[in-house]
Amino acid sequence: MRTNADSLAARDVAVAQIAAHAGKRVRLRGWLYNLRESGKLLFPILRDGSGWIQGVAFKKALPAEEFEALRGLGQESSLEVIGTVRADARAPGGFELDIEHVTVLQAVSADEPYPITPKEHGIEFLLEHRHLWLRSQRPTAVLKIRHEIIKAVRDFFDADGFVLADAPILTPAACEGTSNLFEVEYFDQKAYLTQSGQLYAEAAAMALGKTYCFGPTFRAEKSKTRRHLTEFWMVEPEVAFATLDDVMHLAERLVTCVVGRVLERRRPELAVLERDVAKLEAIQMPFPRVSYDEAVERVNAAGGGMVYGTDLGGADETLLSQQFDRPVMVHRYPAAVKAFYMQPDPERPELALCVDMLAPEGYGEIVGGSQRIHDRELLQRRIAEHKLPTEPIEWYLDLRRFGSVPHGGFGMGIERVVGWICGLEHVREAIPFPRTIYRIQP
Amino acid sequence: MRTNADSLAARDVAVAQIAAHAGKRVRLRGWLYNLRESGKLLFPILRDGSGWIQGVAFKKALPAEEFEALRGLGQESSLEVIGTVRADARAPGGFELDIEHVTVLQAVSADEPYPITPKEHGIEFLLEHRHLWLRSQRPTAVLKIRHEIIKAVRDFFDADGFVLADAPILTPAACEGTSNLFEVEYFDQKAYLTQSGQLYAEAAAMALGKTYCFGPTFRAEKSKTRRHLTEFWMVEPEVAFATLDDVMHLAERLVTCVVGRVLERRRPELAVLERDVAKLEAIQMPFPRVSYDEAVERVNAAGGGMVYGTDLGGADETLLSQQFDRPVMVHRYPAAVKAFYMQPDPERPELALCVDMLAPEGYGEIVGGSQRIHDRELLQRRIAEHKLPTEPIEWYLDLRRFGSVPHGGFGMGIERVVGWICGLEHVREAIPFPRTIYRIQP
Repeated sequence: MRTNADSLAARDVAVAQIAAHAGKRVRLRGWLYNLRESGKLLFPILRDGSGWIQGVAFKKALPAEEFEALRGLGQESSLEVIGTVRADARAPGGFELDIEHVTVLQAVSADEPYPITPKEHGIEFLLEHRHLWLRSQRPTAVLKIRHEIIKAVRDFFDADGFVLADAPILTPAACEGTSNLFEVEYFDQKAYLTQSGQLYAEAAAMALGKTYCFGPTFRAEKSKTRRHLTEFWMVEPEVAFATLDDVMHLAERLVTCVVGRVLERRRPELAVLERDVAKLEAIQMPFPRVSYDEAVERVNAAGGGMVYGTDLGGADETLLSQQFDRPVMVHRYPAAVKAFYMQPDPERPELALCVDMLAPEGYGEIVGGSQRIHDRELLQRRIAEHKLPTEPIEWYLDLRRFGSVPHGGFGMGIERVVGWICGLEHVREAIPFPRTIYRIQP
Repeated sequence: MRTNADSLAARDVAVAQIAAHAGKRVRLRGWLYNLRESGKLLFPILRDGSGWIQGVAFKKALPAEEFEALRGLGQESSLEVIGTVRADARAPGGFELDIEHVTVLQAVSADEPYPITPKEHGIEFLLEHRHLWLRSQRPTAVLKIRHEIIKAVRDFFDADGFVLADAPILTPAACEGTSNLFEVEYFDQKAYLTQSGQLYAEAAAMALGKTYCFGPTFRAEKSKTRRHLTEFWMVEPEVAFATLDDVMHLAERLVTCVVGRVLERRRPELAVLERDVAKLEAIQMPFPRVSYDEAVERVNAAGGGMVYGTDLGGADETLLSQQFDRPVMVHRYPAAVKAFYMQPDPERPELALCVDMLAPEGYGEIVGGSQRIHDRELLQRRIAEHKLPTEPIEWYLDLRRFGSVPHGGFGMGIERVVGWICGLEHVREAIPFPRTIYRIQP
């Protein structure tokens, strides 16, 4: 592909850096997002992944054949444009480009037009074309915020002395039953995709003191709610000597840090999503702490019909979280509805020293954590009560045989957090290529 | 568990922060790494995940029952120690702790001793006890360097304007045959664990310009070499408009940055591993670039027996990499031995515009990349020549239908890089819980 760049001393720049080149001649390479025509003027909007900019092509300002080539171009045609950057207060990004040259790399024609037009499309159509849909403004904004959230999470733990220890994805056996597990043919054995790295993170915490794992996790649930994916990313810190209070404090610090970082660096993307940022600016420590007992009262006083002793359902979570302007931490659930490894409350042993953090605005649980049982005999009793096989987690019991210490941690589901911060209706938009019960394409 | 901390105004500190508390009374919580006895003195070495420190317990300095409790403790017992930090130039970390109180949290007894003693153990025994082995000095050092490498990689891309777009782990179909793929029962369908996120990264690059994915990948190879894992982490940048030269330059910048960061921040861990850091300090840009043609000549001149047209084997790679003090980039392999999606060299179409980067000292390939075919017809022809089914990657062809542009990228295997930088014999030590053909435990 021949271009005019060499002969014109035009520097390659990204749209995001355009402000530093005002008054200069530059070359932009990207895709045609939109094209408006007005007499002898064409107004192409170019995107290059870093941003969007409107160009102005005046018929006399560029070679006739280049003007004509631009005029006929379909959406998402790829092209190179040479022009001069001009500050313009009316332009969305503050700048426009006065175009002198256009080189078409690949023309998208009317015969085979780009399938995602500015008109409305159904969600199934968009998911089917996810590989193209990513180019649209909303998905791009969501991906950039997701990136920022993940970076903020990692920076938070790294700065706090945590050591990353990735948990394995392929696990040998199902310690909590196989019903929600994906089974894998592993040579001549069966393996399962991990649901959580926690047990491995506990081993790492005994080695490293403060650790986290951060990777994809899998649940073969047949849930079709807007909060469920079969494949999602989760960060799971685990801390030796941590109590439930420590776990709650760590979780609120993390979430506050993440929201703050997005507000600091991703305002333009929040604006694309039309997110009410006042709701996010309210996220400040401390977060309210509500016992399970109080939560039941609050839900029922608000019109819910919770039976004491059952877990909170989605509707209950919404009734409760609506009572606060920031995430609420519900602690000390009945042990009977929680996992086998949770430390009982010494004052009321029928309760577990656990916490669920519910996002505001009805976005549901974003964090689940607990103090873990550190006493071997108690843990063995719980394993027996839950009728779990001990053999596959004999190694987990080793952590209580050799230098057991109180410890705790939590898991935070990344797509839930992305969904909340971005204000998405469904978590499937919170991950580049969502996997749900009916979808593993593309 | 009752402690003496409250009554003594002793601050909780981590071993890594001990220098800031010289002369002060502190509380350390951790595990007994070693215990030496000398008359009325006990010399426990404590580890807490952040570091190791030797304590000095003089019989008269602490309550008799606490001295006795310490005296009998087995390796990896958990304990709390209160004492005063004393600078001592002879101590490995520069400080010792004069102990006043010891609280045993869990005593490891002689009846059931900690299985990993300072004596030598076979590798199979250590892998079987990986959940405990992580506590030893070498594995801890490797994990901290792995953490630093991963952080450096992410920081590098984030600072360079790349946007993270995680590729899916569960993929619908095998575009390059199923022989090296793990099959998953996905409800009523079959799915496969990803071998590479590249095709998805290409879609994301058309949306974001510069992108990367970074997650676990899977190969069901029956390889039993010291360079192979069935589950390993890979970072895969993909850049719109990148040529092979751009890809090579990006790869050498990344690797230089990563090595530099480890040298800057993880000298103590490299020392634990007895790594020859001079070898790492030599890693400076530019890296040598050697064409495949030249590589064959060099290998054969060094005593190898390569047949022109075949891929480099492990022994060939070693013969070549030994000729350089830094990673060598071998480019333009015969297209016939490379993947279907690689752009042909316009000057010699039988060659692919691809590159493999070989680590020094015989650590093998750490990066593999290429410019990708951007012409739809050529790509379709290649798919037909490779007898690949088109239906499952119809979406991939869409990227050439709608605004195709030249682009390229590479994959860098994290455990290979960790193995090289740490100087490990086998990559199974480069990941917290290694998965190989015969091992998915613990």
